[in-house]
Amino acid sequence: MNNRTSLISIKPQPGHFYAVGIGPGSPDLLTLRAASLVENCDTVISPQAKGSAKSIALEAVRPFLNQQEIIVHNYPMERNRQKTQERWQQLADDVVLRCNSGESVVQVTLGDPLIFATSSYLLQSLSERMSADNIHVVPGISAFQTTASRFGDALTLQEDRMMLMSATDLVAVEQALEQCETLVLYKAGGCIQPLVELLGRRNLLSRASLVSCGEQGEHELQIADLSRWQVKPLGYMTTMIVRTGSRPWSEG
Amino acid sequence: MNNRTSLISIKPQPGHFYAVGIGPGSPDLLTLRAASLVENCDTVISPQAKGSAKSIALEAVRPFLNQQEIIVHNYPMERNRQKTQERWQQLADDVVLRCNSGESVVQVTLGDPLIFATSSYLLQSLSERMSADNIHVVPGISAFQTTASRFGDALTLQEDRMMLMSATDLVAVEQALEQCETLVLYKAGGCIQPLVELLGRRNLLSRASLVSCGEQGEHELQIADLSRWQVKPLGYMTTMIVRTGSRPWSEG
Repeated sequence: MNNRTSLISIKPQPGHFYAVGIGPGSPDLLTLRAASLVENCDTVISPQAKGSAKSIALEAVRPFLNQQEIIVHNYPMERNRQKTQERWQQLADDVVLRCNSGESVVQVTLGDPLIFATSSYLLQSLSERMSADNIHVVPGISAFQTTASRFGDALTLQEDRMMLMSATDLVAVEQALEQCETLVLYKAGGCIQPLVELLGRRNLLSRASLVSCGEQGEHELQIADLSRWQVKPLGYMTTMIVRTGSRPWSEG
Repeated sequence: MNNRTSLISIKPQPGHFYAVGIGPGSPDLLTLRAASLVENCDTVISPQAKGSAKSIALEAVRPFLNQQEIIVHNYPMERNRQKTQERWQQLADDVVLRCNSGESVVQVTLGDPLIFATSSYLLQSLSERMSADNIHVVPGISAFQTTASRFGDALTLQEDRMMLMSATDLVAVEQALEQCETLVLYKAGGCIQPLVELLGRRNLLSRASLVSCGEQGEHELQIADLSRWQVKPLGYMTTMIVRTGSRPWSEG
């Protein structure tokens, strides 16, 4: 008999807020801490992009839901800073009220709450209005980790540099190819055609792989070698890894 | 009643090998998948640096051990490629034998198995001798995620670029400061004095934070702002984050 049961009964504290990363979408890739906080909190906030049919994050944590209050938070997917901030400010007001009245509140986020995640906006607003002691971040498996795990090749070894960025600025992407041994590109779906052209020009297609909707069941697409792939439209949640070289140790 | 119990009973398959990331060292930061594989496999391999008193990875998974066979694998911490490869080759021979005889084998690794992890060497050897279908990688929370979670500031938003590298090559570190908005430095303990001097020269100390032995109980040290810190010796497992700037969206 091991003591796992006692481990997974860690409870959220009244009046505290938890930004919880839940990983790529498969319920068994939550950490035990994340699962326990979702199971035992009073309120779960789950983001949903405006226009989406459902909240993928909420689906991923469904096995851990009991009687918690669920707030599905719609947010604008526009590149408009003022609108974005106003929307998160309203949510922050609600969280502060709930915490002040003694509730424990968990916000679930796909991936990790601090890597290209909308939860960062909420954390920023809350940090101005709540004690830092009452705000917690629980890290989660991010999409680049899921993508790499599908192919089993090291992301970094020895003196390698890994760069992680959005694929949307192709000028910056081309520059980054010169600055690191491993380039990770988030949001690669929206610009897959010009991205593949860029890698083709630089003879890097055979060193590039991608995963779309990783760990999301039948929606997952894995391409281990882009030189053997015919480009087709892909969703927003596509992560590409380009391995441009390696920087071994100098022998000691 | 939720269906969590059925989720966490996913079993390792006979003859399969699993490289499992267990996160920073706190047992509740294993994913449910990692915990279940450790609990249910036939053999657990745990790395231990030569000269260390104990395997930190093994301590972290102790709550999940029952009757599994435990192999503590000593490996050289030298920058000698041939010695390193020979040592891992021997371990690969053992894993192949065990899998061929129908055992399920889990190798546990602190952090993520593909980010500056010794398990990459074993995966490489195994990929030459076992079917890819029998080799699996389970991602884990890496040290930079633990470090960032302690302070709650976003690692990347919008068009930000994050670079992750070892701190050991200071020339490369200085160059990287110009190439990204967030610089993550692993293994910062061994060169903390010259690193702090470098950041001081570039007026970046107040933008730098670090965590040493994150999520390892009483051993953990958190420094939120290096400009208010008196340098002192730190262990190998120290991760520094330098936030050099941000690249916001162009308004859409």
